[in-house]
Amino acid sequence: MQAIWLEDQKLGIRNDISVPKPNPGDALIRVRLAGICSTDLQLVRGYYPFTGILGHEFVGEVVEAPGYPQWDGQRVAGEINIVCGKCSSCMAGRANHCEQRSVLGIKNWHGAFAEYLTLPVENLQRIPGKLSDEAAVFVEPLAAALQIQEQVDIQPSDQVLVVGAGRLGQLIAQSLTLTGCELQVVARHDSQRKLLSERGIMAIGESQIPERSMDIVVDATGAPGGFDLARKAIRPRGTLVVKSTYACDLQLNFSAIVVDEITVIGSRCGPFKPAIQLLENGQIDPRPLVSAQYSLADGLAAIAHAEQSGVMKVLLKCEQITKNCLSGH
Amino acid sequence: MQAIWLEDQKLGIRNDISVPKPNPGDALIRVRLAGICSTDLQLVRGYYPFTGILGHEFVGEVVEAPGYPQWDGQRVAGEINIVCGKCSSCMAGRANHCEQRSVLGIKNWHGAFAEYLTLPVENLQRIPGKLSDEAAVFVEPLAAALQIQEQVDIQPSDQVLVVGAGRLGQLIAQSLTLTGCELQVVARHDSQRKLLSERGIMAIGESQIPERSMDIVVDATGAPGGFDLARKAIRPRGTLVVKSTYACDLQLNFSAIVVDEITVIGSRCGPFKPAIQLLENGQIDPRPLVSAQYSLADGLAAIAHAEQSGVMKVLLKCEQITKNCLSGH
Repeated sequence: MQAIWLEDQKLGIRNDISVPKPNPGDALIRVRLAGICSTDLQLVRGYYPFTGILGHEFVGEVVEAPGYPQWDGQRVAGEINIVCGKCSSCMAGRANHCEQRSVLGIKNWHGAFAEYLTLPVENLQRIPGKLSDEAAVFVEPLAAALQIQEQVDIQPSDQVLVVGAGRLGQLIAQSLTLTGCELQVVARHDSQRKLLSERGIMAIGESQIPERSMDIVVDATGAPGGFDLARKAIRPRGTLVVKSTYACDLQLNFSAIVVDEITVIGSRCGPFKPAIQLLENGQIDPRPLVSAQYSLADGLAAIAHAEQSGVMKVLLKCEQITKNCLSGH
Repeated sequence: MQAIWLEDQKLGIRNDISVPKPNPGDALIRVRLAGICSTDLQLVRGYYPFTGILGHEFVGEVVEAPGYPQWDGQRVAGEINIVCGKCSSCMAGRANHCEQRSVLGIKNWHGAFAEYLTLPVENLQRIPGKLSDEAAVFVEPLAAALQIQEQVDIQPSDQVLVVGAGRLGQLIAQSLTLTGCELQVVARHDSQRKLLSERGIMAIGESQIPERSMDIVVDATGAPGGFDLARKAIRPRGTLVVKSTYACDLQLNFSAIVVDEITVIGSRCGPFKPAIQLLENGQIDPRPLVSAQYSLADGLAAIAHAEQSGVMKVLLKCEQITKNCLSGH
């Protein structure tokens, strides 16, 4: 099958990959649509030494799930952490932090920029019929946005700032505005501001960031400078949520964080079910966030496009090129 | 009067300072005993550009409090933040973070390494008769230790690690062990271990720090290396409380904090009343923590002593040298 392969920080389209065989408990899924995320771009930059098929945002169709016929033909999204279910993290209700985990397209598990992938059936979530592929492919990043509300109690009277209005920042802004909080979003590009204002969300420039006054600030820039802007805006005893992962260290004046008694919270993957529900009900509309759609064969151009400043979500249409590739197993 | 004066990172004993005159609402306090804290040592190193009389841990006696005769002659400790009572922080119940605040011996307010100091009467807390000066001088640092429990919900089943068993680390350990949690303390010096084991607290060495398993870790080292040790010990989604302020930036792999969804909380001043109560009831016994007592005149030797590795609390006996110095006002 065809897939986008990462090795030694080099990307290539390969056509010689075998269609994976599902292990017991796993499903084989035909990928319909996949999304390019900043984490994919970071992996290419060497954020984590991954070798294999990239991609972790997808919507697909179950081809086979041995022992679980109820999944056959279902359209699904999939949670990206493949966990052991037995370690102390799993047993304590923190399975996403399983120390033995693999992560789809990120760590020890081939990802979604391919015609097919496998995932444990317990990772699958059915996509309701009325949800388009173009919306369903946003389930994973929207779940990551909702994780903020899993971790931080946001009240309608809170003043909240999101720093960064890119792919993830937009989904975070859309989900936070549903809490009724007083929300502002720092956006660099006119196109980003337009998307926000269409949802009634106030966009501001970097120079307009209010100092030391925000109750909650989310750094969704994906860049080291984002933390400094967030730090500037947060009030003493405020909560600063960091969604950015980047491939470098950060220089930090920790003393100031102690004196101001700031809470800094790292935030990663989130809950799929509420993400599907919000998309199904139309409370979140990610479709205006799609900047471009490419075929899997043009995947390298798609990733180059996603790298450009101000570009939102770039999707990969993983059409079945090798129609008969399943006959072999 | 006599006082220890800091200017341009140079310390000196001065005898030419006028006894301060209390402003309306303030009390004049004769200092009986003062404690040297790591923050004092950091100030000497330039952590904050303070000019004036050092010192913020004290027990003293009210000489006069114009308009508040009920305070006359009372033995008191004093909260160190002198606040405006009007700004948004004060009105929101976060007076310790008043943006206009002065801080005793730290910012715009002369401190306790002197024969006399002034403080607003609302900052004063009466010291019960049965509490010795040697115990009462620990009210301020014990309050800072208790601030951890104001900020973090610590359960008896939590595994908690304190990194650092110095002045503050010992008080934190003593207060945390009262929660019933499973507590371990990283201690470098035999003398520190002995103090801990006398309270039934388990001391471990740096090489014995359990990796990625602690629910809550407190960095009380006062040194940049402490954060790395704490980071190593914390489990995913754990809470890392930072009590250290130091005069340099910290290099940090933020991406790992995001992936592990760690919560980092800066923690500073705490509540005086519970500190006094725990000392009065003997649930916290700080007296074994006193390494030495010096007269104010020997203050520079006292501070040099406090700088030495492994040394606990050094106290300054602020005897009244200038007996008649009050006659002038």
